[in-house]
Amino acid sequence: MTLRLALGISYDGRPWQGWQTQPHGLTLQDCLESSIESFTACHHPTTCAGRTDTGVHATAQVVHFDTDIDRPMESWVRGLNSKLPDSISVQWGQVVPDSFHARFSARARSYTYLVLNSRVRQPLWAGRAGWVFRSLDFEAMKLAASSLIGEHDFSSFRSSQCQAKSPVRTMTRLDVTKSGDLIIFHLQANAFLHHMVRNIVGALLQIGQGRQPVDYIVHTLNARDRTLAAPTFAPDGLYLTDVHYPDITLPKSRKLPFAS
Amino acid sequence: MTLRLALGISYDGRPWQGWQTQPHGLTLQDCLESSIESFTACHHPTTCAGRTDTGVHATAQVVHFDTDIDRPMESWVRGLNSKLPDSISVQWGQVVPDSFHARFSARARSYTYLVLNSRVRQPLWAGRAGWVFRSLDFEAMKLAASSLIGEHDFSSFRSSQCQAKSPVRTMTRLDVTKSGDLIIFHLQANAFLHHMVRNIVGALLQIGQGRQPVDYIVHTLNARDRTLAAPTFAPDGLYLTDVHYPDITLPKSRKLPFAS
Repeated sequence: MTLRLALGISYDGRPWQGWQTQPHGLTLQDCLESSIESFTACHHPTTCAGRTDTGVHATAQVVHFDTDIDRPMESWVRGLNSKLPDSISVQWGQVVPDSFHARFSARARSYTYLVLNSRVRQPLWAGRAGWVFRSLDFEAMKLAASSLIGEHDFSSFRSSQCQAKSPVRTMTRLDVTKSGDLIIFHLQANAFLHHMVRNIVGALLQIGQGRQPVDYIVHTLNARDRTLAAPTFAPDGLYLTDVHYPDITLPKSRKLPFAS
Repeated sequence: MTLRLALGISYDGRPWQGWQTQPHGLTLQDCLESSIESFTACHHPTTCAGRTDTGVHATAQVVHFDTDIDRPMESWVRGLNSKLPDSISVQWGQVVPDSFHARFSARARSYTYLVLNSRVRQPLWAGRAGWVFRSLDFEAMKLAASSLIGEHDFSSFRSSQCQAKSPVRTMTRLDVTKSGDLIIFHLQANAFLHHMVRNIVGALLQIGQGRQPVDYIVHTLNARDRTLAAPTFAPDGLYLTDVHYPDITLPKSRKLPFAS
């Protein structure tokens, strides 16, 4: 009997060339599928909720795959983790209905972006947070962020490589909070375009640094033209932190350890 | 005119073979001295407050060195940081009296040890926290920790390679706190023996896991025999977080970002 399994995956994106499989094999999907093959002696193609880019991290990636192998879930989790390197681990596993699809059943994704606002570089945050050494106008960023809530054409914030058919997305949350010298951006939308979070954070940081006025974000959004927007910000501080499936209850993934 | 400079240094210890210079050159001291040489075109030997081991991190290492080169302090900090890799940075610099010595003027050192107590491995903590998957008896560890406060012969907790003349140290703080699934050990003493923090944390975790009773720590201390103590715990979760100089005010180093 074929079962469909869902797994919750956490990773440090730094050593990896993004999620999606590549001929060179240096991706998170390749690594996960190798561990499954090593554990089961069969190749199992996997599908994920969000194909993160090179250097992007996750606390709550979700994947599914089909298998004829029936083992206790604890055995899958422990077995795969024993095959995976330090930078990836399976947080939980669950049998799901055949109708479940990690990507298409998801109704919302949450990303968190961490920016360290400090005069000097912080080695303990290298590759794990963006860095801005100029002081940031926190209130200006909050105000600008609020204008992106709702359904919009986000063409100005998608990369030229974006393969999505429509540039329209619904942003349901864009909070900017502060914890010491860490600026924390929480974003939730039905889905995100390629580079959308990093382009939005890049634009908000232009405003925060006083290089652009608060209404720059609305002008950029309305222009629907990527060439007018700020440079794509570093992947370092970006974490996939939640995927929402309204029709099924999956185990909760552990929160981002440095910022709640 | 020769000036004595003190620098505050932060680092991620993972890529380095400890602080102290080695012929292979893969140490933090070698890296810092190379950056100074590259910045000034002269070799400047440095002295540090605490010679951390391979894989041990710091938010607040202090070093001093003498130089004939007179530059604004901001220029030293920025200049050295431009030469240093992502895993090390200079947090501050200050001219100090000739009588100041990074090691001998220090009256107390503080270390923090982070242990992640979670059922599965957490990639975002790899190399940055110790990991225990069995549930820990927090109150038992707190109780045991309190019995190490004061002046004691810590022979049972020093490594066989320890070069200190006396095994007697005065422990002024040993707090065990909790933040989510993170167990945080804060230790302060006049000085620490080689591997002392990792050996104490290892012993407390034996108690926390119920493998030893609470009074195991006192029996181990009183035995003054390293061969009776728990294995040295991993360097991963260890951070040098403060050095106390009673006779001089130095800039405060940034706190450990993940645990205060």
